[in-house]
Amino acid sequence: MAKLLVVGSVAFDAVKTPFGQRERALGGSATYFSVSASYFTDVAVIAVVGEDFDASSQAIFQKHGIDTDGLERRPGKTFFWSGEYGENLNEARTLETELNVFQDFAPKLPEHYRNTEFLFLANIDPELQRDVMGQVKSPGLVACDTMNYWIEGKPEALRRTLESVDIVVINDAEAKQLAGRSNIVAAARDIMAIGPGTIVVKRGEYGVVMFSGKDCFGLPALPVENVVDPTGAGDTFAGGFMGYLASCGTAGQEALRKAVVYGSVMASFNIEAFSQERLSSLTRQDIDSRFREFADMARF
Amino acid sequence: MAKLLVVGSVAFDAVKTPFGQRERALGGSATYFSVSASYFTDVAVIAVVGEDFDASSQAIFQKHGIDTDGLERRPGKTFFWSGEYGENLNEARTLETELNVFQDFAPKLPEHYRNTEFLFLANIDPELQRDVMGQVKSPGLVACDTMNYWIEGKPEALRRTLESVDIVVINDAEAKQLAGRSNIVAAARDIMAIGPGTIVVKRGEYGVVMFSGKDCFGLPALPVENVVDPTGAGDTFAGGFMGYLASCGTAGQEALRKAVVYGSVMASFNIEAFSQERLSSLTRQDIDSRFREFADMARF
Repeated sequence: MAKLLVVGSVAFDAVKTPFGQRERALGGSATYFSVSASYFTDVAVIAVVGEDFDASSQAIFQKHGIDTDGLERRPGKTFFWSGEYGENLNEARTLETELNVFQDFAPKLPEHYRNTEFLFLANIDPELQRDVMGQVKSPGLVACDTMNYWIEGKPEALRRTLESVDIVVINDAEAKQLAGRSNIVAAARDIMAIGPGTIVVKRGEYGVVMFSGKDCFGLPALPVENVVDPTGAGDTFAGGFMGYLASCGTAGQEALRKAVVYGSVMASFNIEAFSQERLSSLTRQDIDSRFREFADMARF
Repeated sequence: MAKLLVVGSVAFDAVKTPFGQRERALGGSATYFSVSASYFTDVAVIAVVGEDFDASSQAIFQKHGIDTDGLERRPGKTFFWSGEYGENLNEARTLETELNVFQDFAPKLPEHYRNTEFLFLANIDPELQRDVMGQVKSPGLVACDTMNYWIEGKPEALRRTLESVDIVVINDAEAKQLAGRSNIVAAARDIMAIGPGTIVVKRGEYGVVMFSGKDCFGLPALPVENVVDPTGAGDTFAGGFMGYLASCGTAGQEALRKAVVYGSVMASFNIEAFSQERLSSLTRQDIDSRFREFADMARF
């Protein structure tokens, strides 16, 4: 049985950056998350794909030993996203979003997933996030992501999800929007008052700040010059973060801090190439060596 | 003889933030810098003030033992700035700038300043910065700040200044603008190719990243909830940074990293109140305790 379960999207992405483009690269939050987490623990994916999802698309999951029993196939096409990044690689301009089979996604957990200990609810409809939580018998630890679309569109459903999760992993701007606060300390406190004991705030090129109970941990991002494609960096971070926690079997303060570093390590690799081209070819040595680079950068 | 010399502005500021306002607070880059640096070393100020600069304005310099032999008095009024911060305290909207006596500022160093070891050129006309450098016989270490106004208005003069300094202390956006690069690693490398061996990039609520030779150091800002007035935070940072270096008498990698932390410590205090109301009433114990908070936040 996998220790870590992720529910999210599997997609095909058309991405253009100043450094090149890909017409049909495997993407989606559950893909980035699970490939990243697979370096640390056994991971299983709950998602939906269409008839255009063929054996070669499946290959990356197999290569990383990712359990795809929960990858549902339905008539129609797989979720498709296309976007473009300008010289400033911090934000994508979405050109097209075709939800396709993802539109009616109704996650159903195979029976043998119902005892999973660690659960990550990637950025999907908060009602579905809550539904999945209900299908896991007694998860040890649940984390979720969300975005402006749900903060604006389904604030009440999102609130109910937040009431039940242990950790929120969220962008800086979206944390502030969710709390209606311009100060991140105030925003974090307000969000934690809803339920989660820990909030991990992703700040892109500026790194990560985590609030957990009374503890506060800050980690700068590793300055990377050759940013080729930032798509999936947030989900890759979450995969390293949750994968490491699942490998520890605990989420104490020390483990949480190291998990933030491992998440940042994985994200720093992912942005170096298109899709999972770099992320999917790492060795444990690569990861350990990059971890030491972070340690060296942050010490004083 | 003071170990550290700063050339910059002394001003009166009218500041309004969501938390209150001050009609006529002592401000200016040289003021924030020298008060901050005074906790670490002997510091002297080169600046110009007008007839409205009275004994009470002078008091803060005296309280901190700051050498004001180089504070020139001229007929006319002192530099005046007024600005307003909105809910997002990251950027001020300038309402009024009256240069007054600062317009014809021509820094002249008293004879006994000419052997100063550590020199900080705050954000003034790069031609004046270069002129001051020429008046110091053989400075051990020179650092400078600058801003978009000079990057756009006097690029050639600024380049000549940069050719001769050891350290640049600069905002993230201005470093990118100066180098014409959107990636901070590329921007830092290009700026260092002009001359300075070290570049310290200030990122406001996201902290600081420093490039020094092949070394890279990142420090998150301490998350502060009660930001009352961010005016002078950058100069306060520079004062703590240079003050600590001057107190060490060296600028090796270890000292540079600790200097970034002390700079951040001082800035974190300064934003907690208007003007220097918090900055000017610190104890060594306050500073050491805040240093430990940074160490605790950054460790993993």
